[in-house]
Amino acid sequence: MAPKVGILAGGGPLPGYLVDACRSSGRDVFVIAFEGQADPRVVEAAPHAWVRLGAAGEALDRLRAEAVEEIVMAGPVTRPTWRELRPDRRAAKFLGRGLLNKGDDGLLGAIVRALEEEEGFRVIGADDLLDDLQATAGPFGAYGPDEDSTADIEQGVRVLHTTGPLDIGQAVIVQQGIVLGLEAAEGTRGLIERCAGLRREGRGGVLVKLPKPGQETRADMPSIGPETLRAAAASGLAGIAVATGATLVFERDEVVRLADEHGLFVVGIAPSDIVAGYASGS
Amino acid sequence: MAPKVGILAGGGPLPGYLVDACRSSGRDVFVIAFEGQADPRVVEAAPHAWVRLGAAGEALDRLRAEAVEEIVMAGPVTRPTWRELRPDRRAAKFLGRGLLNKGDDGLLGAIVRALEEEEGFRVIGADDLLDDLQATAGPFGAYGPDEDSTADIEQGVRVLHTTGPLDIGQAVIVQQGIVLGLEAAEGTRGLIERCAGLRREGRGGVLVKLPKPGQETRADMPSIGPETLRAAAASGLAGIAVATGATLVFERDEVVRLADEHGLFVVGIAPSDIVAGYASGS
Repeated sequence: MAPKVGILAGGGPLPGYLVDACRSSGRDVFVIAFEGQADPRVVEAAPHAWVRLGAAGEALDRLRAEAVEEIVMAGPVTRPTWRELRPDRRAAKFLGRGLLNKGDDGLLGAIVRALEEEEGFRVIGADDLLDDLQATAGPFGAYGPDEDSTADIEQGVRVLHTTGPLDIGQAVIVQQGIVLGLEAAEGTRGLIERCAGLRREGRGGVLVKLPKPGQETRADMPSIGPETLRAAAASGLAGIAVATGATLVFERDEVVRLADEHGLFVVGIAPSDIVAGYASGS
Repeated sequence: MAPKVGILAGGGPLPGYLVDACRSSGRDVFVIAFEGQADPRVVEAAPHAWVRLGAAGEALDRLRAEAVEEIVMAGPVTRPTWRELRPDRRAAKFLGRGLLNKGDDGLLGAIVRALEEEEGFRVIGADDLLDDLQATAGPFGAYGPDEDSTADIEQGVRVLHTTGPLDIGQAVIVQQGIVLGLEAAEGTRGLIERCAGLRREGRGGVLVKLPKPGQETRADMPSIGPETLRAAAASGLAGIAVATGATLVFERDEVVRLADEHGLFVVGIAPSDIVAGYASGS
């Protein structure tokens, strides 16, 4: 039987999809639900424990007591205030290394290494449990990018290839060759919403969301879902491009239905077809 | 006597400062005020003509009729709708080259070249008329950056050096090593306001605003003024860093007064001290 999985649950629906996937394949699962981050409606249907984000020692002890062997980190964790964090001794070890002053990749990569090398767990990616959620190649629904949108996608890939090493964000919105906005701390939904007011008259506008080159996708794989589509439609975008095989698509049927309803395209692309050497994953 | 100056006036206070500077040095001046862009209170105190942005032929004919020899482009021009633009034959020549699908630098650089090489004007920079508005080195007021802010400034310079060739924006906000936001189509004030909600608990947060490497500063030199300070104070930033000798500081006395009142620093830096080869201007 496959080893028991521990889910370190941040926000959003991903932890719930992982619980469902484990159950349908007969795998045992235990959820560490981070206080102030995980959604109770998502995690409380499975065996779980609520743990402060700063209580790394408690989380690790509980995972061992539950005989968890493999760990998957799932869902975004908003940067906590120091009060919420109150690091215990093991959490302080991370913080003492100044990890919170790095970007997401630096922090998450270090956590993955520590969990494997110091704590003896195997860290797996959400996509290891959720093969069928991986973005496929080409258009998902009835619409595909036209010539203008294809040019905007290519521009977006070039921008993200350049900004990737800065570890700022995963997404950019391009319209008619102009970068309307580049994601940083506001997140993809914040980016889409603020770009609604920046669109130029006329057609187009594409969200390009890709892993940063070399990104630790086990801890933080880009994802889209129905919420992304609703925001994109409300902002008047023409479509969305994601990286084939390196993006999680939640509720794909609903994503396709919304895309077709609003006349948007969603397309899986290979960034390395556009910028040679654009490699992701680790 | 110095040759007559024609001011191509977009928005903001800069055209007015230029009119004042010409008058106090006894230079004749004529203003082309772009409809929907220039502020009537700023331009109507000088000899001027209102011209549609798309009426390049009318603007050029009027400048010749007024015996203008030198041209200065002043103040931001928001991207017009096609209806506002309605390009005439000479404006269409620019558009036919696809200039509107380039970023700001590509467009402005091409306009400068066309004005000089095809139309026979000399294009000068706002700083040629406004020496005393150039940012000086070091702290402007009572406060300077502490160690944390200095590190954030350095991170901001590195980010802008990397993103500069993409021709996206001139400004970034960094706090505790994290990029909160990177300017694109929303402009500096939009950037400052949206980052207010993204700040992490605790101190710090620095706006770094620099010319892009190789930017056509004659057409589009970065600037700050009292409005920038008010927005930065309202957003809880610790301070602002600009490039010495490559940034216009409007109403410096008021900028310094606001900085001191709110405990902010404003500092002039040399980006090339932080990233070797960070050169601006053309």
